[in-house]
Amino acid sequence: MNPRVSGETWVSPKTLREALFNAAGVVLYMDVLSVLQQKSRAIDASLPLFLPKRGGAGWKRDYMDMLWDYNLRGGKRLRPALCMLSCEAWWGKQEQAVPTAVALELLQNFFLIHDDMEDESLLRRGKPCLHRIWGVPYAINAGDATFVKVWETLMANRGALGDEKALEIAGEFVALSNRTTEGQMREMYWVREKEWDLTERDYLEMAAEKAGYYTVVAPLRLGAICAGRGGLKGNFDSWGIKWGVAFQIQDDLLNAVGGKKYGKEIGGDVYEGKRTLLLIHLMEHCNYKQKKEIMKIMNKPREKKTAKEVRSVLKAMGDCGSVDYARKTARRLAEEAKSGFEKSFADARRGEAKDALAALIDYVIERDV
Amino acid sequence: MNPRVSGETWVSPKTLREALFNAAGVVLYMDVLSVLQQKSRAIDASLPLFLPKRGGAGWKRDYMDMLWDYNLRGGKRLRPALCMLSCEAWWGKQEQAVPTAVALELLQNFFLIHDDMEDESLLRRGKPCLHRIWGVPYAINAGDATFVKVWETLMANRGALGDEKALEIAGEFVALSNRTTEGQMREMYWVREKEWDLTERDYLEMAAEKAGYYTVVAPLRLGAICAGRGGLKGNFDSWGIKWGVAFQIQDDLLNAVGGKKYGKEIGGDVYEGKRTLLLIHLMEHCNYKQKKEIMKIMNKPREKKTAKEVRSVLKAMGDCGSVDYARKTARRLAEEAKSGFEKSFADARRGEAKDALAALIDYVIERDV
Repeated sequence: MNPRVSGETWVSPKTLREALFNAAGVVLYMDVLSVLQQKSRAIDASLPLFLPKRGGAGWKRDYMDMLWDYNLRGGKRLRPALCMLSCEAWWGKQEQAVPTAVALELLQNFFLIHDDMEDESLLRRGKPCLHRIWGVPYAINAGDATFVKVWETLMANRGALGDEKALEIAGEFVALSNRTTEGQMREMYWVREKEWDLTERDYLEMAAEKAGYYTVVAPLRLGAICAGRGGLKGNFDSWGIKWGVAFQIQDDLLNAVGGKKYGKEIGGDVYEGKRTLLLIHLMEHCNYKQKKEIMKIMNKPREKKTAKEVRSVLKAMGDCGSVDYARKTARRLAEEAKSGFEKSFADARRGEAKDALAALIDYVIERDV
Repeated sequence: MNPRVSGETWVSPKTLREALFNAAGVVLYMDVLSVLQQKSRAIDASLPLFLPKRGGAGWKRDYMDMLWDYNLRGGKRLRPALCMLSCEAWWGKQEQAVPTAVALELLQNFFLIHDDMEDESLLRRGKPCLHRIWGVPYAINAGDATFVKVWETLMANRGALGDEKALEIAGEFVALSNRTTEGQMREMYWVREKEWDLTERDYLEMAAEKAGYYTVVAPLRLGAICAGRGGLKGNFDSWGIKWGVAFQIQDDLLNAVGGKKYGKEIGGDVYEGKRTLLLIHLMEHCNYKQKKEIMKIMNKPREKKTAKEVRSVLKAMGDCGSVDYARKTARRLAEEAKSGFEKSFADARRGEAKDALAALIDYVIERDV
């Protein structure tokens, strides 16, 4: 039987080491962007090892085109980078974390493919969303196939880390996938049920599940497990959540005001009716007439919203201080995360990986992509 | 942390034994239907242990309603039954196979939720498909959540079977999920690309992946692994595929001619443009004029097909002998499967489980649901 189909590990640690060496060579960490680039190259070099070979004809060609195009579109690769850096900071080797980091990237891609359909998004990583190229039926199935690859990739941990750690890591993926599907349900429900009775607290709770745990806490925990320091994983939860929520607020800000290399549609959150921190602040601080007008716009389905209406909501966010407020909140959360990080990582190995993690806390609120 | 969210095993073997005992008590296998019913009750009793608690308000209520309604709608439960029976025939206890059997049922439900959207189906198990009740965005996410529960349930094998077997079983799930997403892509491609250059061989290859491996081979292999006889699993592949393909042909037949308790739309395959054995036989045996007419109908999108047109295709299948041919083919494959089964299971424990498996080979081609 084809080992690729049998669900067994088929990427040997040696193959992995060679791929990583060819991709990365010796890289000096110049700054946080070069760290992300180096980690991204490690993912680019290893991810293809975990995908079926390209080529073929007919259905196979289309199937592989979808999986390869989307999974190698790039993106920030923040989650796999955090996982690998956490592993290195806890005295592990990067290669110990690679299958797990690749699985995090595949998981993110799976969620993006499906979320973009659920939210009727248009652009992703500077290109049309997968369903806009291939249609909804193909894209649902391509997302499912990518999710299967997550579990297949996690099986490769057996060889490198042993059965017990492989299962502990798989359990972490179950937990974070549960949180993410629940978080997505909560967001969709708010839009669909035209829910306006929401406070900053509701937003923070949703963002903690959707971004805090998923984007920051889980990758840090997984990196520590890969390094054999799984006993530490509970230490990262409280401040990691803050870091991740700061990331999410910056995401909302970029969506509202744009950025140089921003790969999504500006104002997309308004088109999609998303309850962002900016919107919740706006609803609490604008006057009654404005509030009624904004609710009217936000409650319309995407295709009924005009560009002028969307611009008026974005403008109000600036005028009412919601943009400033979101910036300040993200900054405050990042500062709090930083002091938590310093304590939790006090005993970690000093050096590039630890420095890079500290720098990435600032990065998430300074980034323009 | 809530153990339900942490991805760790939270259903103790004792809880499972009690639930099974309460559900089944002592049941004498009267006939094959009572076997399926008994196994179905075992699933009904255990599946809720692997789902989050019902209740709550707002998004949580809707979320749980979707997961509970769909996962407990019933259905034949053939896959979990085959897994439990294979485990028992190989000297295992039913409870050793229960988490794996529940995971097979959850996997089936996940695929059905997504496939029904991809194929634009209307009915499933006598009720509207999930996306027709809740809309596509919620249903995509509910499918994903169900798929996460598959892996969460498989983690429960750690306690009962140990880490190595738990991982072997997870690897089997990866393999069968890969085959199923590929099979689905192949079928969708045929419809979308208006592919008519297809032979019986193409159909049999597709059905082997879609039904042969998934419906029969994998459950039998998994049951043997649960019983600690994983070394035997390769013996079931060749004849198990035939059994599963016979099952699929009977599925196509029921879709064309109906059955007393059939839970799907009659003629649904024609509406969806599916390339069934009946259709492929029909295209090879009708005259040129009929062939052109049928292609014209089949190439139309679902909403452009009239009930009269669909009836005319179904009638032609009867007139050209395609229905008879499909019946004969299913019968032949089932006979071949039976002789393979007798050999592979010659050393299995004599008794109810083995008898039930033999009877189920006939059942799949005699069933009317």
